[in-house]
Amino acid sequence: MTETNPLVRKLGAFVALSDAELAVLASLHKRRRTFVAGRDLVHQGQSDQAAYILASGWACSYKLLEDGQRQIVDFQIPGDFLGLRSVLLHVSDHSIEPVTDIEVTEILVADLLDAFAQTPRLATAILWAASRDEAMVVEHLVDIGRRNATERMAHFLLELGARLALVGMGSKAGYACLLSQYLLADALGLSAVHVNRVLRQLREGGMVTFRDGFVAFDNYHQLADFAQFDPSYMDQRGPLLR
Amino acid sequence: MTETNPLVRKLGAFVALSDAELAVLASLHKRRRTFVAGRDLVHQGQSDQAAYILASGWACSYKLLEDGQRQIVDFQIPGDFLGLRSVLLHVSDHSIEPVTDIEVTEILVADLLDAFAQTPRLATAILWAASRDEAMVVEHLVDIGRRNATERMAHFLLELGARLALVGMGSKAGYACLLSQYLLADALGLSAVHVNRVLRQLREGGMVTFRDGFVAFDNYHQLADFAQFDPSYMDQRGPLLR
Repeated sequence: MTETNPLVRKLGAFVALSDAELAVLASLHKRRRTFVAGRDLVHQGQSDQAAYILASGWACSYKLLEDGQRQIVDFQIPGDFLGLRSVLLHVSDHSIEPVTDIEVTEILVADLLDAFAQTPRLATAILWAASRDEAMVVEHLVDIGRRNATERMAHFLLELGARLALVGMGSKAGYACLLSQYLLADALGLSAVHVNRVLRQLREGGMVTFRDGFVAFDNYHQLADFAQFDPSYMDQRGPLLR
Repeated sequence: MTETNPLVRKLGAFVALSDAELAVLASLHKRRRTFVAGRDLVHQGQSDQAAYILASGWACSYKLLEDGQRQIVDFQIPGDFLGLRSVLLHVSDHSIEPVTDIEVTEILVADLLDAFAQTPRLATAILWAASRDEAMVVEHLVDIGRRNATERMAHFLLELGARLALVGMGSKAGYACLLSQYLLADALGLSAVHVNRVLRQLREGGMVTFRDGFVAFDNYHQLADFAQFDPSYMDQRGPLLR
């Protein structure tokens, strides 16, 4: 296990991990599994399933309403937990679908408790990661409640870029983006046509271009101003616990 | 410390707490403080503040946008953490305002880490509480993204009732509700006039009456059907860890 493991990179932003803690983390990465794109690996309402750490590929978590509407809650990238919340809440409150083929490691609740018992600092680091996930959901709530469509898209693209940068998959120049316009629409509460229009506005404003699977920040600072993007909720300032 | 402590009641729904764990929880309740209604105790952007456990009274967490719009993210009731996320993320991503005069106990990050080291099961219980909070924010995201105003209000009143019931302050008959229509409006992304209209609809539909500081469920099951309220995300089925 080296710095190339995305979960280690991510938790390392919060806790300076000791060799013992790295070993406990490595022991969580035993059961590798793969899932194909487009087929749910967790279903809303399912009980007592495992949680996963995403090793490669992207996924999305979503909720379906009875009338068939879908709200994407968040996207997961390498180093993120899938279903951590569900494993603690007995019943999954959402579904998880791989956006691409993905590779994950499965974690049983018992493994997690063992890991916490061995190293309480790891528990704090995972609580930190969960807090950061919650902070992102809160931002999405503000996005949908109070930001217009163009600001919402700008904010979303900036946040995703900052998350990818933390695991070495993006920079302020841009990043490879595996999301279709349909997925963006379901995440931002817009129609696919509206997504198209909003992306054109941002491109013509010289701020950001999303084309051929790549998001290029044409003017990062202007875009961040426009979206009122304050990345402090992402907390990438470096380890709090040394 | 007895079952009358709301945090003990709440965590007890997830973990059957031992005497040793109860003692650690009690040790977290040392520093009592009070705050008056309407004056922020945590400011968005503030760094390195403490977290709190709410002992009595109600609070709300919210975000302000640069243009002055406000989005209430959630309300806190006795037994809830205030600012737990902020204490781990260095910088608070939201403000917290007491809705009533409140009594809290202050928790420093170091105390929390000590508590986790002494009893990893407590860490898991607190991670569970954080997961439950996140599940509620996710529901609010779905509320605002995909539910109409009347469903949104119905869902909100049901969720708040279920949370209050867990700490012994409500039932399926109803609960004392300390929220003004202005607070409801800022939480649900509605105007105060719209809140009024929606509450009248629900009352005239024979489902729920919010009047004189009391929410009375006139027909709980019809209301739950109407709002598609599935309380499983609240996870009140009884302890997972015994």
